[in-house]
Amino acid sequence: MPADRGQTAGRATISEVAAEAGVGRATAARTLGGYGHVSPELRKRVLEAAEKLGYRANALARSMSTGVSHTIGVIVADIGNPFFAGVVRGICDASRARGFDTIVLSTYEELDEEIAAMNVLIDKRVDGVVVASAALSGRDVGHVKEALKRGVPVVLVDRAVPSLDLDAVVIDNRDAAREAVERLIAAGHRRIGFVWGPPVPEPPATRRELLAAASRNLWTDGERLRGYLDALDDARIPFDPELVMVGRKVEERVTEEVARMLALPDRITALFCTETEAVTGALRALRAAGLSYPRDVALIGFDDSAWAAVMDPPLTMIEQPVHELGAKAAEVLLDIVRGAEPGRRIHTLRSRLIERSSVAPPPA
Amino acid sequence: MPADRGQTAGRATISEVAAEAGVGRATAARTLGGYGHVSPELRKRVLEAAEKLGYRANALARSMSTGVSHTIGVIVADIGNPFFAGVVRGICDASRARGFDTIVLSTYEELDEEIAAMNVLIDKRVDGVVVASAALSGRDVGHVKEALKRGVPVVLVDRAVPSLDLDAVVIDNRDAAREAVERLIAAGHRRIGFVWGPPVPEPPATRRELLAAASRNLWTDGERLRGYLDALDDARIPFDPELVMVGRKVEERVTEEVARMLALPDRITALFCTETEAVTGALRALRAAGLSYPRDVALIGFDDSAWAAVMDPPLTMIEQPVHELGAKAAEVLLDIVRGAEPGRRIHTLRSRLIERSSVAPPPA
Repeated sequence: MPADRGQTAGRATISEVAAEAGVGRATAARTLGGYGHVSPELRKRVLEAAEKLGYRANALARSMSTGVSHTIGVIVADIGNPFFAGVVRGICDASRARGFDTIVLSTYEELDEEIAAMNVLIDKRVDGVVVASAALSGRDVGHVKEALKRGVPVVLVDRAVPSLDLDAVVIDNRDAAREAVERLIAAGHRRIGFVWGPPVPEPPATRRELLAAASRNLWTDGERLRGYLDALDDARIPFDPELVMVGRKVEERVTEEVARMLALPDRITALFCTETEAVTGALRALRAAGLSYPRDVALIGFDDSAWAAVMDPPLTMIEQPVHELGAKAAEVLLDIVRGAEPGRRIHTLRSRLIERSSVAPPPA
Repeated sequence: MPADRGQTAGRATISEVAAEAGVGRATAARTLGGYGHVSPELRKRVLEAAEKLGYRANALARSMSTGVSHTIGVIVADIGNPFFAGVVRGICDASRARGFDTIVLSTYEELDEEIAAMNVLIDKRVDGVVVASAALSGRDVGHVKEALKRGVPVVLVDRAVPSLDLDAVVIDNRDAAREAVERLIAAGHRRIGFVWGPPVPEPPATRRELLAAASRNLWTDGERLRGYLDALDDARIPFDPELVMVGRKVEERVTEEVARMLALPDRITALFCTETEAVTGALRALRAAGLSYPRDVALIGFDDSAWAAVMDPPLTMIEQPVHELGAKAAEVLLDIVRGAEPGRRIHTLRSRLIERSSVAPPPA
């Protein structure tokens, strides 16, 4: 629009907004950049000044004037997990649509690596970070607080961190797990194995200890276990610790544990698998035992994939909105990068149970 | 070793090496950093001076003094492809073992994105880049040359780029494809479908045009098609363009094309699938046609996965050394970052045909 060229609307600098608001430049930058602490009163004055000067009318020019590098960082637990690969694709697509590049670091579920990754991203001056964090307790979140202190906004994806008051984009894992286990119960099952549970060396003696162990490990793990227990409770099925896998979370361990559950006097007739590797590990155990699904054992798992659909019979699976999880996280982050106030809330997306042919009634 | 503390061996600076060699600091830095052009004679003098001063004895301190950031960049075609996820894991593990962090960008097979990704990595001052490049012709490689010009060494992974004289770590795709198709021929098959071929809208009229189209698209595609043709030639089986899928490389298209090949008067009795998505697309087509493998159609594909092993019957697949491909690429790159001369050669790793149960003789 050439007619607008002579106007100054949208070309106001941070310094002009600061002068108009009667605050320091740093305060104006923090407010408009959406990082660091600004008192509600000063924030209000800065935003009113920005509004008056038409500062918001040209977000791109503004962000360039504040030194935005147009790069966001992503820290995921394991880029080899197709779930995270899909989330990353969503982040890349949404960022690209807004003119931002995306760089990814994978921590392979180690908190030390996550801390190192955050330092790399701060060092590389990204404009913000999306993180699927292995951190849970207040002790573990120093690196996230450091990023925020340095003016790098952070949005959580897949995993909420109770001790951090940040925007988080997740699915309702508890509800997704409950729906799946309810589906198994509705088919008549009462002996339902749960793989995988928390990576503790010995099965916890009580249900409370089991939940505590799962929650200490990973937010999603705790939520999925809660959903399993919810469904059992609603159906008045007693909880049996023998039906929950504990120990190292690898496919081989799943195969061993499912074999154990199949050899119990009152053996499992159904399985709920919280991970793709738990599904493939369970299928190996069934084959080794000469059993087939859904005739001998019913099965539902996280996460849906092209493979699950071409299995014979095809598998009933939980599909997470992976692309949408990533895209939403990027959008929330980029809104903050461009001046929106952090919402500090949990954004919950819906997963979906894809019913195929791996659930049947228990054998007579 | 406290006894060594007072010694200066390993503590020499670039300037000291330059002075000893009688060259400028920039020449010494280029030589020791493994980037840019240095004449063989000057390189020799610098390396001899470095040797004399014990410069090589402390690579880490040296790299820090030259401003190495201890971060390498990785550009992959599609992080959502488990093949690349495995390669990235190998790169991360090898880099971490040497004290380097890894940042990843995914181009989703678009050359424009690859160019943008390279600019991001140059901007973020990574010490080197591993790239699975979509570039092929000399016209497409400006961004790689720009990185080299800026002193950022580049190593190729998965895909050689004929117009670039760089280290590349690949498998022998032609040989892997030939071995798989020979296995099908040995079982008695002569009507062997090839999915997927080049993404041209119409089937090329001649074999030469087909090969040219595949090679224009992607180095690995051309190599795998050559391997298929090699095996046919060796067995004196005439090439039939109707048995090669062309068009968009997506799972849905594979399903359509395999359905077409199954409906031919002289239908296919075997399939060679060059990608995981081609395998799942082919399995959908078989199911839709009411056919099963290996009884009605034999099948071999790239790349092996946990799913392929738990299919019933389990699939015969080509396993690429994904972790090793990544680790080797990182090692070659980090050697260059730490002063080795670029080898400018193709490092070829071995793939493996994992024989399971998806190959049987053709139906009578």
